[in-house]
Amino acid sequence: MGMKELFTVVPDGSVTSPKGFRAGGLHCGLKKTTRFDLGAIVCDVPAAAAGVYTLNAFQAAPLKVTQESVAVEGKLQAMLVNSGNANACTGKQGEDDARTMRAELAKGLGLAEHLVGVTSTGVIGELLPMGKVSAGIEQLPGQLKADGGDDFCQAILTTDLVKKMICVRVNIGGETIHIAGAAKGSGMIHPNMATMLGFLTTDADIDSADLQKLLNESTDSTFNMITVDGDTSTNDMVIAMASGLGGGGKLNPQHPDWPAFAAGFRHVGEYLAKMIARDGEGATKLIEVNVVGADSEAAARAIAKTVIGSSLVKSACFGADANWGRIIAAVGRAGQPVNTETVDIRLGDISVLEQSRPVKFDEERAAEYLKGELVEIYVNLNMGNGRATAWGCDLTYEYVRINAAYRT
Amino acid sequence: MGMKELFTVVPDGSVTSPKGFRAGGLHCGLKKTTRFDLGAIVCDVPAAAAGVYTLNAFQAAPLKVTQESVAVEGKLQAMLVNSGNANACTGKQGEDDARTMRAELAKGLGLAEHLVGVTSTGVIGELLPMGKVSAGIEQLPGQLKADGGDDFCQAILTTDLVKKMICVRVNIGGETIHIAGAAKGSGMIHPNMATMLGFLTTDADIDSADLQKLLNESTDSTFNMITVDGDTSTNDMVIAMASGLGGGGKLNPQHPDWPAFAAGFRHVGEYLAKMIARDGEGATKLIEVNVVGADSEAAARAIAKTVIGSSLVKSACFGADANWGRIIAAVGRAGQPVNTETVDIRLGDISVLEQSRPVKFDEERAAEYLKGELVEIYVNLNMGNGRATAWGCDLTYEYVRINAAYRT
Repeated sequence: MGMKELFTVVPDGSVTSPKGFRAGGLHCGLKKTTRFDLGAIVCDVPAAAAGVYTLNAFQAAPLKVTQESVAVEGKLQAMLVNSGNANACTGKQGEDDARTMRAELAKGLGLAEHLVGVTSTGVIGELLPMGKVSAGIEQLPGQLKADGGDDFCQAILTTDLVKKMICVRVNIGGETIHIAGAAKGSGMIHPNMATMLGFLTTDADIDSADLQKLLNESTDSTFNMITVDGDTSTNDMVIAMASGLGGGGKLNPQHPDWPAFAAGFRHVGEYLAKMIARDGEGATKLIEVNVVGADSEAAARAIAKTVIGSSLVKSACFGADANWGRIIAAVGRAGQPVNTETVDIRLGDISVLEQSRPVKFDEERAAEYLKGELVEIYVNLNMGNGRATAWGCDLTYEYVRINAAYRT
Repeated sequence: MGMKELFTVVPDGSVTSPKGFRAGGLHCGLKKTTRFDLGAIVCDVPAAAAGVYTLNAFQAAPLKVTQESVAVEGKLQAMLVNSGNANACTGKQGEDDARTMRAELAKGLGLAEHLVGVTSTGVIGELLPMGKVSAGIEQLPGQLKADGGDDFCQAILTTDLVKKMICVRVNIGGETIHIAGAAKGSGMIHPNMATMLGFLTTDADIDSADLQKLLNESTDSTFNMITVDGDTSTNDMVIAMASGLGGGGKLNPQHPDWPAFAAGFRHVGEYLAKMIARDGEGATKLIEVNVVGADSEAAARAIAKTVIGSSLVKSACFGADANWGRIIAAVGRAGQPVNTETVDIRLGDISVLEQSRPVKFDEERAAEYLKGELVEIYVNLNMGNGRATAWGCDLTYEYVRINAAYRT
């Protein structure tokens, strides 16, 4: 590929690795345990900002407030986040609360309100206990640190088991530029944003319009290609902030190093998306579905998403059962052009279907493969050049346990 | 309503209750236990026939053969079914096998081949052991009985726990006419036909064109409104056969008793559809989603299907958790017109959301309600007159267990 050579992963990198960013987290009392439930990322200067938001009609209050902030001048200097309560379907009071949170952090940091964004994740339909939240926001500026990326990551988790963060560096105009990200899952995860929050930071000098375009493109092939359970949340968003403090000159699609920046940016998104899928509620493994040879890229995406979203495929992967019939059934119901005579299917390197004909394969070796931490499913439609990759996880007893009593 | 008065349920009725039908089943060796795995419904005369078939691109071989049969003169005199093997994705050999099955039963019954239909359910991608199947078909005519509806019902089951059959009677032109049905689920169940086989019989005298129209209409609001796991199978079909032996004169939409016939026909479909949903793999309860006040009937259907298909809603019902946030999140992601300020949600008679505002409700009473065998979810969008009902079941540990190792 050569893509990997365009950027380098920074060991132990986080959202504060790019120049100009601090972050932090604390426990304000939204979670029943003492885990962090309030956090922020703050930039030394107004950062060029871009965002993508859930397509769910019931968009949560904080998303509206964040979009209002970004709309003013395309910049954000701070992102505030709470976990444990989504502030969704909370009506006028919910919007007032989101605005209050924005105003309080802006005041604490000495910023204009429109430079602050707000986001929330957790239970839908309950009002925020604003006493606790406001007390937390008051303390938050004192918790911000240049190495606070880890604390921030903890503050955004709900049912996630592991923190999700990454930083890569790229060479832009002779300078080292960083692109970093943090994200949370891990239920209500589905294409067109999951219950998923993503925070990308970079010290590149880029206008918000170019950043928005890049975010849209990379989201389509990363965050929008994962599913845990097919449910699109009310609160999903990915926010990107660019401080411009890394040097290397103004970055835009005409810059000779743009491909490196775009590759690094996409890698951060893909890494976080895969982490979210792997850490899906109850998951024991990551499933990657590669569709090639489709009629179009759109068809490939739809088919990949349908296969990765199939409860039957997900259950079979959990049970290490090489039941490829469920894969082809999912391909067939995706509503896309399919030549029913030309489909190949592989599980890892084990061919199970060629030209739509079952292949005799070693069931034991297939079961052994499916027991692994990563299951790669390849579907070749042998029709055209459309290709896409989607990520998800297996469906387990633990998923049911978690979701049978999420609130209790 | 008044609809119920148009027809009467026949106690212990089955597909052989309408005049002219016999049925039966036997064990030929496709299932590992001694459970029946081969069955047939046979009519004394060529019956007017209608069918609806899966929309999955990988339609199984027997469905093609059945459609060919019906295409000849719109009639069927026998339907052959096997369980334990779907004969899907089996290529040319699979089609040859389905044709052989048809030819063998036709010969055994002394019928023209085009009066015989074939259908299969079970594992995808394995060739039928035709030795066993042929030996079974040879014995099948001797097993057909006027009270063989129960045996037939057993022969079509796979992971189903209970037999699904019903018969209603209606008064047509002064004569008693019967409409009966048998069906099987219970995984890979989703709108636009489930892994689901339905067999409807009637002794009404009706042309196949009118029967087809009625079957299409009633399927849209019955079999196509259920989901267990969102997976549309390769083998789904519903076949209706009308012997015409019940008297009462030629039945068509202009007949004064047509509304009674249509109501009875729809009731048979709805009853079987609900039975399939209730008996979904691992299910502990039936969930009914009623959407009213939608922008259109199409919007209501899409929203009802999205709610009933949500893994999170299904898990919450299993856990008796009144987590209505998941319901509204599903409403919001259905891709249909929604006024986010006017939505009401009830669980049974417990109001949890009014005009999109959370209502304080008795959590204990709600949990008690959700623990029941039937959970009714009402969503009123307060926008228009579109309404629809969808049925499904809860998502349980048992669903995962069954599907983690279906083939083993």
